[in-house]
Amino acid sequence: MYVHTPTDTSNSLPSADKPVMRSAFFISDGTAITAETLGKSLLSQFGDVEFDIQIIPYVDTPESAYEAVKRINQAHHLTGLRPLVFDTIVSDHIREIINSADACNLDIYEGLITRIADEINHKPDPHAGIAHSKVDSDDYKSRIDAVHFALDNDDGARTTHYDGADIILVGLSRSGKTPTSLYLALQYGIRAANYPLTEEDLDTSSLPPALKAHKHKLFGLTIDTERLVRIRQERKAGSRYASLAQCQEEQRAIQAIYIAQKIPNLNVSEMSVEEIATRILQMTGLKRRIG
Amino acid sequence: MYVHTPTDTSNSLPSADKPVMRSAFFISDGTAITAETLGKSLLSQFGDVEFDIQIIPYVDTPESAYEAVKRINQAHHLTGLRPLVFDTIVSDHIREIINSADACNLDIYEGLITRIADEINHKPDPHAGIAHSKVDSDDYKSRIDAVHFALDNDDGARTTHYDGADIILVGLSRSGKTPTSLYLALQYGIRAANYPLTEEDLDTSSLPPALKAHKHKLFGLTIDTERLVRIRQERKAGSRYASLAQCQEEQRAIQAIYIAQKIPNLNVSEMSVEEIATRILQMTGLKRRIG
Repeated sequence: MYVHTPTDTSNSLPSADKPVMRSAFFISDGTAITAETLGKSLLSQFGDVEFDIQIIPYVDTPESAYEAVKRINQAHHLTGLRPLVFDTIVSDHIREIINSADACNLDIYEGLITRIADEINHKPDPHAGIAHSKVDSDDYKSRIDAVHFALDNDDGARTTHYDGADIILVGLSRSGKTPTSLYLALQYGIRAANYPLTEEDLDTSSLPPALKAHKHKLFGLTIDTERLVRIRQERKAGSRYASLAQCQEEQRAIQAIYIAQKIPNLNVSEMSVEEIATRILQMTGLKRRIG
Repeated sequence: MYVHTPTDTSNSLPSADKPVMRSAFFISDGTAITAETLGKSLLSQFGDVEFDIQIIPYVDTPESAYEAVKRINQAHHLTGLRPLVFDTIVSDHIREIINSADACNLDIYEGLITRIADEINHKPDPHAGIAHSKVDSDDYKSRIDAVHFALDNDDGARTTHYDGADIILVGLSRSGKTPTSLYLALQYGIRAANYPLTEEDLDTSSLPPALKAHKHKLFGLTIDTERLVRIRQERKAGSRYASLAQCQEEQRAIQAIYIAQKIPNLNVSEMSVEEIATRILQMTGLKRRIG
């Protein structure tokens, strides 16, 4: 998918080299994260079709709605194809303006909100909204605290605060521990430390002393050797650290530790950070602190 | 909202102290992030109603689907209220099993996929999926590189790599720069450094030398004084750093710098990290490197 940012209003006509892509708009009165998440998920069901994505957040006034309509109609004019429009706009008035564009309107909320309202026998309150709950002070604090915890306890930097950890990710260098720790913190408020098992730790099948006392909090990330070599090569090309032999040796050693110490672990080679985090929650039963 | 994790199967009957909450299930054959994002966004339209949220990812076999049905029916039985079920399951067979539960089924994909297919005249491919695109190697690398860039250039730790920065967030200590940098990296692959303007920087309305050469990349975060005091008090209660007088003084000084140096800036006091990031993209026109 090709993603336009909101200010990218380049109007160049499609050239002969570039096939015409249908435009898809994700529009919202807020961040447009919901429209984008669902819209991309739906478009991904048409795997081989390419779309020209345009995200328009904060469409919360008639003026910004008319501006969005103008962009939608331009896209139609330039491509000759009706754009797909995914919106999550709450105001009826603003939504009507968007719906006046010459497009295929996939009004995400329409219908669903009515069905929920009927089921729970309660009228929707258009002034409510999820964004508001996100700055709720407890959640905000948990999140920020978790981010700072992840930073302070990244890469085995410090091991004295493991009492406060919800989970300690272990794995070889460059197996994805750091992004996973940060994602767990930002998304779920979970306090995740991470500790790289390096050559000296791997010489024995026992755990480093810093980890022993917290064995029940350990979770291992593993990664295919081939992928590990590639990632390390990108970082330190030609080094022993990035050699196949060294990576194979470390893999054998860490598998032995996982087995001997009964550490739950996950092969993350084909996983996005989102998937790794979701699987960890599922496998460990770890509770989110926010969200 | 009260969030159950997948393994939380506590079946305690509602007590007299706790009002009965209707259950809402977010179910998917993948991470369930799409179902959760949309589901929460819809439920938030009923601001004052509380729901008991249960998220069930990776429902991709008949067995796991029957297990989910069991949990849905249990929730109905325990509360006497039909649970709301939001699912984004692609397989017709698995979806039918889920739909057999005694619940209000809000099949998110149903209808929308058909409408898109009709509009673009193309059949959906149930084997495609967004998760796959996320481990695409270019995107993966951009994301991981951006995370490491944010970590290496957090909190003014290093200022020699600003040539490689897409953006440099500035602001007072504890104004939200670090979580925002990490979110920009994880979500958009944007390389965000951050630099705290401290007392010595604030003594003059000129910029610290490290920032001068990169003035066009600077973006300021501001935060209400009252909120800043509260956040700093939580960190260092009773200190001068957390005093109202000190915060007021720093606020005056940083506003003077923003004005004198024409640095675009945003008051983030009431914003979630998601909102801050979205607004920054909107205000600066900064391009996402992924997503």
